[in-house]
Amino acid sequence: MEAYFDNSATTRCLDPVVDIVVKTMKEDYGNPSSRHGKGMEAEQYLRKSREIIAKTLKVKEKEIFFTSGGTESNNWAIIETALANQRAGKHVVTTAVEHAAVIQPMMYLKELGFEVTFLPVDGTGRISLEELENALREDTILVSMMYVNNELGTREPVEEAAALVKKKCPKALFHTDAIQAYGKYQIYPKKIGVDLLSVSGHKIHGPKGVGFLYVDEKAKIRPLILGGGQQKGMRSGTDNVPGIAGLGVAAEAAYQDFAAKQALLRSLKEYFSEKVATLPDTRINGPLGELGAPHIVSVGFAGVRSEVLLHALEERGIYVSSGSACSSNKTLPVSTVLREIHLDSKYLDSTVRFSFCTQNTKEEIDYCMDTLRELLPVLRRYTRH
Amino acid sequence: MEAYFDNSATTRCLDPVVDIVVKTMKEDYGNPSSRHGKGMEAEQYLRKSREIIAKTLKVKEKEIFFTSGGTESNNWAIIETALANQRAGKHVVTTAVEHAAVIQPMMYLKELGFEVTFLPVDGTGRISLEELENALREDTILVSMMYVNNELGTREPVEEAAALVKKKCPKALFHTDAIQAYGKYQIYPKKIGVDLLSVSGHKIHGPKGVGFLYVDEKAKIRPLILGGGQQKGMRSGTDNVPGIAGLGVAAEAAYQDFAAKQALLRSLKEYFSEKVATLPDTRINGPLGELGAPHIVSVGFAGVRSEVLLHALEERGIYVSSGSACSSNKTLPVSTVLREIHLDSKYLDSTVRFSFCTQNTKEEIDYCMDTLRELLPVLRRYTRH
Repeated sequence: MEAYFDNSATTRCLDPVVDIVVKTMKEDYGNPSSRHGKGMEAEQYLRKSREIIAKTLKVKEKEIFFTSGGTESNNWAIIETALANQRAGKHVVTTAVEHAAVIQPMMYLKELGFEVTFLPVDGTGRISLEELENALREDTILVSMMYVNNELGTREPVEEAAALVKKKCPKALFHTDAIQAYGKYQIYPKKIGVDLLSVSGHKIHGPKGVGFLYVDEKAKIRPLILGGGQQKGMRSGTDNVPGIAGLGVAAEAAYQDFAAKQALLRSLKEYFSEKVATLPDTRINGPLGELGAPHIVSVGFAGVRSEVLLHALEERGIYVSSGSACSSNKTLPVSTVLREIHLDSKYLDSTVRFSFCTQNTKEEIDYCMDTLRELLPVLRRYTRH
Repeated sequence: MEAYFDNSATTRCLDPVVDIVVKTMKEDYGNPSSRHGKGMEAEQYLRKSREIIAKTLKVKEKEIFFTSGGTESNNWAIIETALANQRAGKHVVTTAVEHAAVIQPMMYLKELGFEVTFLPVDGTGRISLEELENALREDTILVSMMYVNNELGTREPVEEAAALVKKKCPKALFHTDAIQAYGKYQIYPKKIGVDLLSVSGHKIHGPKGVGFLYVDEKAKIRPLILGGGQQKGMRSGTDNVPGIAGLGVAAEAAYQDFAAKQALLRSLKEYFSEKVATLPDTRINGPLGELGAPHIVSVGFAGVRSEVLLHALEERGIYVSSGSACSSNKTLPVSTVLREIHLDSKYLDSTVRFSFCTQNTKEEIDYCMDTLRELLPVLRRYTRH
């Protein structure tokens, strides 16, 4: 049996996504900037995707800009709003548990002379609104807070935070990295006061190499990538028609039968969590219930190194992540996030992330549990203390 | 009959390119940053593509960095070498006929306080080495010169220019936008002194949304996109495995039977040029022979607006470009390049670009010529003077 439980790292593309990618590579392969019919034809795919995505967020189509993925979206949102608004102040706020694609642009802003406040989190990975309120200043121009933490599944209080920012710093922009949240939550940026929102295609069964940034039409931002003036000059470069078309199909699928899908994910997570909690010396790190995302479970298995467990599981066809699959940056500690929640040291090196998608089944979870029950005692015996 | 003569705007993907894209979307869909087998499997595709591409350029594999396309490659090469080397000087040199993806980053550098020299060109679109030599200064840190002009097909004297720069300004970096040249020329950066070279996938029958930047291992450059530290920290973001795998297949195909392919392109161009030259009031703008790229012909049809001709041709299934398909930037004049070569005003608004690929045929050209012979007198009759 095979059980792919690493859906927060990346997902398998849906068949209709692959179909539209093939069609736009082989048949409707025009350049949307071309003025002839093949160009118009290609542009229709962009329009359609923009329409689908704008609808899922209840925003205007012209507020959706396609990028090469979540990382570019985060870089663009953070660096280019800060540079565009620096006359109003040079203070930005974020959290200590953001993805590297937010942390690193923040470090770059620091190099450029900006002041960055990293909000601490509690034992579940959640920031405190009080700390946020204390951090806000007159010269705060940007707050960036992830919607769902990629390692723990923690849902940050983005709605409350955005409301607070709009009240205390009405001129500051609010950005959310929604890469682990889009498709899992109904998010309406305009309703909750989010000005910028980053999404990646390949986390929702869409293509790699494509994503988008929602930018409120009133937000002041500069382009990150300059050139031929595509996307109203905000993101130059020949539009990635196959990627964008595929992203549209994936977004539409993610929000179809949304409630049923969310319930299915929650039931998988609960089923898994209940069973895994019965194993000895085991700890679920992220929050369960409404404070946690429906698809991510972070589990510490005391006495087993996560790398060892990961490889033992993969030999049985079970794919998981050892903490921070997205972070291949060797200059960062392996998991900043686990340190930030002050995890007991015995779980620090022994934590594994299970992340589900709606294609996963309870049978796969049963198989995984049987495998864990068999492997853990053996692996623990061989671990040096 | 259909004749797609807009291959410099974009190309149809090769079937084996589509096949590998499908395979990496459906089967080998892992995230190369994942530490399990599905990650390793995905990483093999990156390695293979890097190996193929490095071989075509005779450079090291570690000097190839994948990007979201030619525009990102150009932005990265120009902005981030300038910022990384600004202590050595703040003067950069380029040409007046670069693509917007070079011109716009140059304008950005100007905003940041850099001095930019734009070299003028002769009537064929070619820069003069003497002008380049005069432009070089002690504080010149970067020279960026396109290999082949996208509108005219003019081949710039990149080899001689790079040699001159290495001699007069040994510390300056030399970048070439090779987006219209890669796959059409054997280019060996190390042999000719090119430090950075930009390529786009979709111009060589590869996928859109992917390209690469060659960076000589000794060149000082900062990353443009920050985050998880992929590609040795030089280009973060989950690697676009399908795009990169497809790019590798396209690059391999482009350099297979290279001499025969180049000869075929040249014969198509010559066949077309000879016939088009027999039409009255018609002018070929770019250079023929060795000074011109094997696949691009820019033709002015006096007395016909290029937009009108473009649409009349497309009604007959013939797809061409009206000057500058890549430039959708309304703030730029329609064709800076045609102005820079001081084209007679009667050809300025009446120029159309024909760009071929090896899948085009002489029959398609015959069909195009028959159509032109029929259309031109009619269109000219209806044009206001």
